[in-house]
Amino acid sequence: MKLAEYSIDALEQLHGQVQAEYLRLRERTLSINMARGVPSSEQLDLSNALLELSLAGDYLAEDGTDCRNYMGQQGLPEARRLFAPLLGLPAEQTVVSGNSSLALMYDCLAFAMHNGFPESSMPWQQEPQTVAFLCPVPGYDRHFTLCESFGVRMIPVPLLDDGPDMDVVRRLVSEDSTIRGMWCVPKYSNPTGTVYSDEVIEALASMQTAALDFRLFWDDAYTLHHLTSDAIEISNIYQACVRHGHPDRALVFGSTSKMTFAGAGLALFGSSKANVEWWLSHASIRSVGPDKLNQLRHVRYLKDLDGLKSLMDGHRKLLAPRFSAVLHQLDSHLRPFGFASWSEPKGGYFISLNILPGTARHAVALARAVGVNLTSAGSCYPHGHDPLDQHLRIAPSSPGLSDLEAAAQAICTCVLLAACERLISK
Amino acid sequence: MKLAEYSIDALEQLHGQVQAEYLRLRERTLSINMARGVPSSEQLDLSNALLELSLAGDYLAEDGTDCRNYMGQQGLPEARRLFAPLLGLPAEQTVVSGNSSLALMYDCLAFAMHNGFPESSMPWQQEPQTVAFLCPVPGYDRHFTLCESFGVRMIPVPLLDDGPDMDVVRRLVSEDSTIRGMWCVPKYSNPTGTVYSDEVIEALASMQTAALDFRLFWDDAYTLHHLTSDAIEISNIYQACVRHGHPDRALVFGSTSKMTFAGAGLALFGSSKANVEWWLSHASIRSVGPDKLNQLRHVRYLKDLDGLKSLMDGHRKLLAPRFSAVLHQLDSHLRPFGFASWSEPKGGYFISLNILPGTARHAVALARAVGVNLTSAGSCYPHGHDPLDQHLRIAPSSPGLSDLEAAAQAICTCVLLAACERLISK
Repeated sequence: MKLAEYSIDALEQLHGQVQAEYLRLRERTLSINMARGVPSSEQLDLSNALLELSLAGDYLAEDGTDCRNYMGQQGLPEARRLFAPLLGLPAEQTVVSGNSSLALMYDCLAFAMHNGFPESSMPWQQEPQTVAFLCPVPGYDRHFTLCESFGVRMIPVPLLDDGPDMDVVRRLVSEDSTIRGMWCVPKYSNPTGTVYSDEVIEALASMQTAALDFRLFWDDAYTLHHLTSDAIEISNIYQACVRHGHPDRALVFGSTSKMTFAGAGLALFGSSKANVEWWLSHASIRSVGPDKLNQLRHVRYLKDLDGLKSLMDGHRKLLAPRFSAVLHQLDSHLRPFGFASWSEPKGGYFISLNILPGTARHAVALARAVGVNLTSAGSCYPHGHDPLDQHLRIAPSSPGLSDLEAAAQAICTCVLLAACERLISK
Repeated sequence: MKLAEYSIDALEQLHGQVQAEYLRLRERTLSINMARGVPSSEQLDLSNALLELSLAGDYLAEDGTDCRNYMGQQGLPEARRLFAPLLGLPAEQTVVSGNSSLALMYDCLAFAMHNGFPESSMPWQQEPQTVAFLCPVPGYDRHFTLCESFGVRMIPVPLLDDGPDMDVVRRLVSEDSTIRGMWCVPKYSNPTGTVYSDEVIEALASMQTAALDFRLFWDDAYTLHHLTSDAIEISNIYQACVRHGHPDRALVFGSTSKMTFAGAGLALFGSSKANVEWWLSHASIRSVGPDKLNQLRHVRYLKDLDGLKSLMDGHRKLLAPRFSAVLHQLDSHLRPFGFASWSEPKGGYFISLNILPGTARHAVALARAVGVNLTSAGSCYPHGHDPLDQHLRIAPSSPGLSDLEAAAQAICTCVLLAACERLISK
């Protein structure tokens, strides 16, 4: 029976049962972290060959660069050639950088705030009106924190099944010239798993914007991170932008952190020639260049795109059962009550769980109290504010399978308990 | 005979000889880069063991951190313990970061511009008057470029034999509250090799500043980079600042780029607890953290401070003869003419050469035309402007010994030719 159809008596009876279950949970000593999209140690083991890969006598790049020495802001040619297809850009327009794609996004925003883009009339921070970014929600909390830290106004837009609601987006960007950017995680989006459709990508590339220096911050973080045998491909944003006369619109980011080693991989950036030159000119003031030895190690280890895809198959085999385990628990324990819904992602790192409005914060607190650490409620919204207080982000990658089942079951209990309490107190 | 004492006839005769020599140089095809302080491949060879160091089965830090995974903004405990003595700070107040100390300095300035330091009344960029930095000259061009990029006003102060001219510094910082920072390369300074005396360091720590949030950007880049057996030690700036009631004054930076591999080493930062917390809070918005595997590799390879010092001995053995070779040429070919003077550094990467005022730009151009690439004239001054146009920076580290002798001889010829032309045209 759906929870909405429960009489008050039935509700109270259910509440008693769920509370008893919750008390039993308190007696177990779970300690399971599902807060962040962190690879498991089994996933990291897949790349252990990288730990023993010797570069002795083998430290020259193909262009003769001694990778033990300074220089080379854009990254090694062979690394750019290997990773360019991930971004959908030519190697000449690809940057292979340090260990953090978030840092690349941060720097792009920082350089824009301080200097503007080549065609900007002034640095964004000098604009008389605060600049704004469109933020499809739910989205990635670190994107939002980044905007917050630069005082960029965030305008939430709904994320539909095929990408951001383009009616809303089109209207906003055409009317409001303070809107200078938009966050997009176009494939297996964090946290919903959403895949942008060809139509949405075409619309993002073609739409007219009131701001002349509008940028898509295109965080293609999960491009090869499939959870099914359906290796979904999406449209090439750069080519679409070029086709529609907006070659400088898309800043495309990628990372090998969830391919090889998290935080010890390579960060990727690609865009128009003008944008790459702009980035290089500012980045070279900050630093002499990235660690090229790690780039060489990655190229020697991965070899080519096939090497990368076969590595990603290994990740899929470890991740898919974890997602299934969580989805199975949700299905068994929450589906019957009819008030919750969740994503069944075909890739990426997260399950999005929508529960009874007004209960997300409480459910997260209940889970934390029994040793299941979830992402803070609201974190997938600008300023951490989920207007309906109903969204939870579940990150199943890191815990082992049995922990994961226990954790997912515990989450169901907490979600149900929060719902009962809410409905009874009404 | 000193050039100043030459009759016009004698000058013209000398000019003819030097010009003939210069023409012979043009016929040789030198191609020698002395523009930047870049380690030679022999120096890099010293750390080749790092290229084959395997971390297989050995990727856990002493606190159990899996270095293949995310997290750990401040760096590994064992890396902080190893490098803290270089900064003269406790390990708890030391950050071991990515591959670029310049990036750490950039970020500190960027965070200050955007947010201010903890005790700042507002972000530096919101101050009604442009903030300023004191810049001892000649100094490091990348420091100045960094100020320039943030629109920080640069006030040159003379660098004397024992450090910045403290009479000037004291007066300026006590009167002008827009002065918020000062660049210091306290040991074997770039480019003069200057070592700050205990008195200067004490004065920098104790002086009263009109600005409450004044910071010393203490770039201790060459702390172990001795060129003689005299391993000079300087006063501990942090402790001096604490002693004088200014615990937050010094931001201390270091790097292993010129110890292990250039651009693939580790960047170091240390300061008061408050400053480190401030840095961590902002850095964690930009990135999840540094590459910890490279930290682990460095710790395994260097082992301890003795390991580091013995590595630095190896560098000294390669660098000292290179410096001697250049100094010998200057002594033979320029000393007799009495118009040039130069530093004889006991450490670091550069020789500072002062030539006839008004001829530095021309001399650099002459050298470039015969295949000897020097740092652009003026680059050791804010905005690239050497008011006397007389300073050259020579970087002897990278070329081989025979190239170096040829290059140094060519530089003497160019310097002398520029001087003759200048004096004749007067």
